[in-house]
Amino acid sequence: MKATLMYGAGDVRVIDVPDPKLELPGDALVRVVRSCVCGSDLHPYHSMASDPAGSTMGHEFIGVVEEVGADVTSVAVGDFVIAPFAISCGECVFCRAGLQTSCLRGGFWNDAELGAAGGQAQAVRVPLADGTLVKVPVDENAPDDLLASLLTLSDVYGTGWHAAVRGGVTRGSSVTVIGDGAVGLLAVLSARQLGAEQIVLMGRHEVRTDLGREFGATDVVAERGEDGIDKVRELTGGLGSEIVLEAVGHRPAYDQAVGVVRPGGVISRVGVPQYDEAPVGFGSLFGPNVTLTGGPAPVRAYIDRLLPAVLDGTVVPGRVFDRTVALDETPSAYAAMDAREALKVMVRP
Amino acid sequence: MKATLMYGAGDVRVIDVPDPKLELPGDALVRVVRSCVCGSDLHPYHSMASDPAGSTMGHEFIGVVEEVGADVTSVAVGDFVIAPFAISCGECVFCRAGLQTSCLRGGFWNDAELGAAGGQAQAVRVPLADGTLVKVPVDENAPDDLLASLLTLSDVYGTGWHAAVRGGVTRGSSVTVIGDGAVGLLAVLSARQLGAEQIVLMGRHEVRTDLGREFGATDVVAERGEDGIDKVRELTGGLGSEIVLEAVGHRPAYDQAVGVVRPGGVISRVGVPQYDEAPVGFGSLFGPNVTLTGGPAPVRAYIDRLLPAVLDGTVVPGRVFDRTVALDETPSAYAAMDAREALKVMVRP
Repeated sequence: MKATLMYGAGDVRVIDVPDPKLELPGDALVRVVRSCVCGSDLHPYHSMASDPAGSTMGHEFIGVVEEVGADVTSVAVGDFVIAPFAISCGECVFCRAGLQTSCLRGGFWNDAELGAAGGQAQAVRVPLADGTLVKVPVDENAPDDLLASLLTLSDVYGTGWHAAVRGGVTRGSSVTVIGDGAVGLLAVLSARQLGAEQIVLMGRHEVRTDLGREFGATDVVAERGEDGIDKVRELTGGLGSEIVLEAVGHRPAYDQAVGVVRPGGVISRVGVPQYDEAPVGFGSLFGPNVTLTGGPAPVRAYIDRLLPAVLDGTVVPGRVFDRTVALDETPSAYAAMDAREALKVMVRP
Repeated sequence: MKATLMYGAGDVRVIDVPDPKLELPGDALVRVVRSCVCGSDLHPYHSMASDPAGSTMGHEFIGVVEEVGADVTSVAVGDFVIAPFAISCGECVFCRAGLQTSCLRGGFWNDAELGAAGGQAQAVRVPLADGTLVKVPVDENAPDDLLASLLTLSDVYGTGWHAAVRGGVTRGSSVTVIGDGAVGLLAVLSARQLGAEQIVLMGRHEVRTDLGREFGATDVVAERGEDGIDKVRELTGGLGSEIVLEAVGHRPAYDQAVGVVRPGGVISRVGVPQYDEAPVGFGSLFGPNVTLTGGPAPVRAYIDRLLPAVLDGTVVPGRVFDRTVALDETPSAYAAMDAREALKVMVRP
């Protein structure tokens, strides 16, 4: 079958690889119906050291179960499934607590130890299938729009939702979202669904911020740095936002979050931090009693909650996809997202 | 009158200063009945640059109202009052939200702009008296033990309570408290009051950890660094503590908190950070979805909740005081706490 591998910064190739097969009784084989490229895939696209062996890519996919191991009980051949970006057992203390990203037995796609390759491929072996896959009552002939929205439940929508939930967004909240990528826009949608009254979206790509307005942003701030902070403070009566959802992951976004958050407020991060240390002292978080929270989203825990509105069309998170390519063209998807010509690219195997 | 000033590292003197007097209609004059030295006073005691003008010291005191300005309505001459370590108006958005440490008009003792001197003195001018002072139904002839416990409500007890509340301690919680100073010990007491099931106290001073056990610690870990982390993990089934209360403020304590917290858990800091930056990236906070919270405690918000059990003797937080000195001897109190000969020293003007 065909699969996408990265061999170094800027070097993505679609090559022939052996077909995946069941290895353990808890495995399932899933034929991929749609996958996509994530903003976080661009981090290795910028920085990966050259590696002749390559890494399989992709951690977001939906598909059809083709085969299951003897122990698998929750999905069967022919089921249409969403694969969250974390592989999880469903049974350990963290899975039971809804924190599948910290599963004691699980891991992530392209995990050598679990033998789980990436989802930008024609098929994937899914370890711990019962704890990982979520069966959805549709089939692969569902409308493209619906498939796109279901695909967002494998990562970006659940990640935006996680930001909002961890941030404590509730009816009447004042929220600032930093970042107009797919996650930022879906953090806007999530904040709106949770009842936020004011949602300031910080972003400078007008096509994206326009979609953000449709998702529920009440204000858009294109300025960055001190100017951006001043603007948000102006929009929030000089006080700053009660809740800041940080969906970028670079240090300037962290600093911006600290700049716009209200004393006693919350910064909820879901952008994977590309830094190790950051200010947490008296002048940043401690003095104003600001809470810093967030992390990789346990999207598995949110799918039941988010699915109904996706299925009935109340929300259309799949609108974050603005381009679709064939699997062979996946390298062009990376290039287009890197050049910001595309917001998020879907891959059709 | 006499007041305590610091002129540089290790240089504390009690000198004669002009008597304070009312300056604004919202002021009160309080004659100090008891004050004390705080662990945080030791930070400038170690590092303050020499200053011939000196800084008045002390931010914890209880006393009797001697005079009030024309606008003061909540306290009257003769009232016995607790002065929280933050001066607050009681009316702004943050005071109404119970975050008096971020009061838009307030500040702290020894604040030049507010003209509020320190509490290690015979008397203090209290700006914003209505929002700041809390009247208590006792008088200065109350038993020494009760006065000591009331004095802890001006800072250390409320600060330990803040750690526990911000950490989300509730019935059945697994908690680790880092630091066996007065705040750490009162964080233990607070966690116990809030129903924590397991309270691991990390500290190596046996007299203090013994008091910690009496306050409710179920386990004591004397080891530090990796050994201490291993020990806490052992005591928590390998998972770490759900909630870590950090009551020290130095970087090693932060690192220890990161080491012992469970994925999905909370680090609640009340030790004033003596560092600016610290790890917050994938390997520390983000990956395991750890929340970092805390800050200076709005103790004013907690006094009503904590006072009844202090008045009826159910809890005796004043046990953290293990020495009392006269005002003239305040320099010796700093020296004794710095040498760890005393846990916390009360000052009797």
